[in-house]
Amino acid sequence: MNNGFSYALKAQDGKARSGVITTPRGDIRTPAFMPVGTAGTVKAMLIDWVRASGADVVLANTYHLMLRPGAERMSRFGGLHGFMNWTGPILTDSGGFQVMSLAKLRRISENGVTFQSHIDGAAHELSPERAIEIQCAIGSDIQMVLDECTPFPCERDEAKTSMERSMRWAQRSKDAFETMSAPGQTLFGIVQGGIYPELREASARTLTAIGFEGYAIGGLAVGEGTELMLETLATTTPLLPEGRPRYLMGVGTPLDLVNAVAEGVDMFDCVMPTRSGRHGQAFTWAGKLNLRNAAFAEDMHPLDEASTSPAARDYSRAYLHHLFKANELLGPMLTSWANIQFYQDLMAAIRLAIEEGRFEALADDLRVRWATAGD
Amino acid sequence: MNNGFSYALKAQDGKARSGVITTPRGDIRTPAFMPVGTAGTVKAMLIDWVRASGADVVLANTYHLMLRPGAERMSRFGGLHGFMNWTGPILTDSGGFQVMSLAKLRRISENGVTFQSHIDGAAHELSPERAIEIQCAIGSDIQMVLDECTPFPCERDEAKTSMERSMRWAQRSKDAFETMSAPGQTLFGIVQGGIYPELREASARTLTAIGFEGYAIGGLAVGEGTELMLETLATTTPLLPEGRPRYLMGVGTPLDLVNAVAEGVDMFDCVMPTRSGRHGQAFTWAGKLNLRNAAFAEDMHPLDEASTSPAARDYSRAYLHHLFKANELLGPMLTSWANIQFYQDLMAAIRLAIEEGRFEALADDLRVRWATAGD
Repeated sequence: MNNGFSYALKAQDGKARSGVITTPRGDIRTPAFMPVGTAGTVKAMLIDWVRASGADVVLANTYHLMLRPGAERMSRFGGLHGFMNWTGPILTDSGGFQVMSLAKLRRISENGVTFQSHIDGAAHELSPERAIEIQCAIGSDIQMVLDECTPFPCERDEAKTSMERSMRWAQRSKDAFETMSAPGQTLFGIVQGGIYPELREASARTLTAIGFEGYAIGGLAVGEGTELMLETLATTTPLLPEGRPRYLMGVGTPLDLVNAVAEGVDMFDCVMPTRSGRHGQAFTWAGKLNLRNAAFAEDMHPLDEASTSPAARDYSRAYLHHLFKANELLGPMLTSWANIQFYQDLMAAIRLAIEEGRFEALADDLRVRWATAGD
Repeated sequence: MNNGFSYALKAQDGKARSGVITTPRGDIRTPAFMPVGTAGTVKAMLIDWVRASGADVVLANTYHLMLRPGAERMSRFGGLHGFMNWTGPILTDSGGFQVMSLAKLRRISENGVTFQSHIDGAAHELSPERAIEIQCAIGSDIQMVLDECTPFPCERDEAKTSMERSMRWAQRSKDAFETMSAPGQTLFGIVQGGIYPELREASARTLTAIGFEGYAIGGLAVGEGTELMLETLATTTPLLPEGRPRYLMGVGTPLDLVNAVAEGVDMFDCVMPTRSGRHGQAFTWAGKLNLRNAAFAEDMHPLDEASTSPAARDYSRAYLHHLFKANELLGPMLTSWANIQFYQDLMAAIRLAIEEGRFEALADDLRVRWATAGD
């Protein structure tokens, strides 16, 4: 499997890695944060702002797009890139995670999962093969195997049964991908196994035997807490091939990113910067600010003078406070933009620190800074 | 009264006029459409988009800003320009119209109007003097006298009593303005009198005797219908001095603008392009489109190829349809932007047609085009 994809490790500092994923649609500098464009739009943001923020890749959700506008319609549109005006690489999840969290009347079997749309109640099925078919219709550059994400807590037996099924689905996904995919597309596997090291090990061994372009770590950030998440990462990343990118799905806070990079993770996605932004929470180098707080009503400082985003530099905190109090859409727009910019600036700082051999110093500095600021 | 303001008539075509209002913050090309930035933001738009659309001036609402963030706070902020990042001229209404349409427990007397905030129920008073004081706190470049906008229908006696009080308020507003205003600010009077030509005439005569930098025509577009509005305009605009701009408040549809320009109006404001945009209605040269309509679900054409806005050119109707169906904020953002751009493009086309002596041909063409397209 190559298809124009490759991963080059540029520098390593402790377990932290910086590198580049080459793709037919452009390079992805790692560690990378992927803004989430659930339904074909990074919420409340112009795609030009996403591009200008330094994001190399965006994520889109298969579950949402298969329901609306629909997989076959996406195919008639010629895929998601032109539809949303994004020329860079797009990574899609398989849809499985959101079926379990959003859909109604879910039923899981060896073949896949049947469910009702949360929008109109229509019946749908998602199998490993259908998940690949839909991702191909979307025109996804980096596709994910269908898996089952176990909840936390989850007994070992249940985690084992589920993981083993996910591994059979991973093989079926790979087989389907080889039949259906277009040149320039690739597929990642997903390590499961809950918080059980021996299950994570078995999962990683199975996936590397099947062989994927990259390896995601799934089933974390589902309530197990930071400590267990980092422990599980610490046992999982060493099991993954050095020459492939590692993707921690659905994570997280700025501090989570720093800590996961320290465990050797290369890619992240999370709705946090945009979701928090819509609710008036801004991420800055000085920590998280709740812009609705009365303390900002007359604060004429910009949101974050250290930001590279006009959204964070050109407007006062008092103005942003006013926009949120008045329920003006410009509040979510500017704060989402500032947050996405902050996440990209953070990843750029992390990459540079790794390349200059001072990642742990940066990480310690940020841990101290954000411990008191309530990150 | 000058203060750096002047109006120069550039061309006249029938009763239609093109000109330039010189202000200390930049020229306003007329006929001009002023985007409405009610609470210090043109809803769902980045101020850069407003600027790039060709808007020379924006309107802000005194009623909203006096309640939130508050007049004295606006003053401490140094005014609205820096707060919202708009360096061009700002016109403010007096607040009176919105007190009558939005506030609770309104009571009008010779002194002014008392009311309760629709936000928190707090008691407020707006007199001619207070309206000027607040507009000065906002830093408004073009201020409006406090007036009473009579409803439609309105008996002649009531319209007369109300108009005469508005004229007394106009004099008090002017007196207050001369005491309170800063250099580089100016004041417009507002002609009232309902649909009664002799009342409009008396009002215009009183105002011109007081002397204002510009003259607004108020109390229209309140339910009287297009025909009565145009009739009233036709009798009112000839009563106003040729050397001063004429501003029709709160109007209107694209066709309303064309028809009112034909009666000699120079300035307009209306929430229609942004409000309609938030609800999925797009204004184009081909007429109004309801983007939520199923007909657009697979329409891969751009919203309006003739537009000068990226929002109208770079995204398909199918994408915009999808955004509105999925309740994505990018739908209102792009459509508001496209609509404001359309309104500015329309005004530019009108100005050029007047200057080239072919305004009536343009107007007739647009009347025919939009009559069938359901403008």
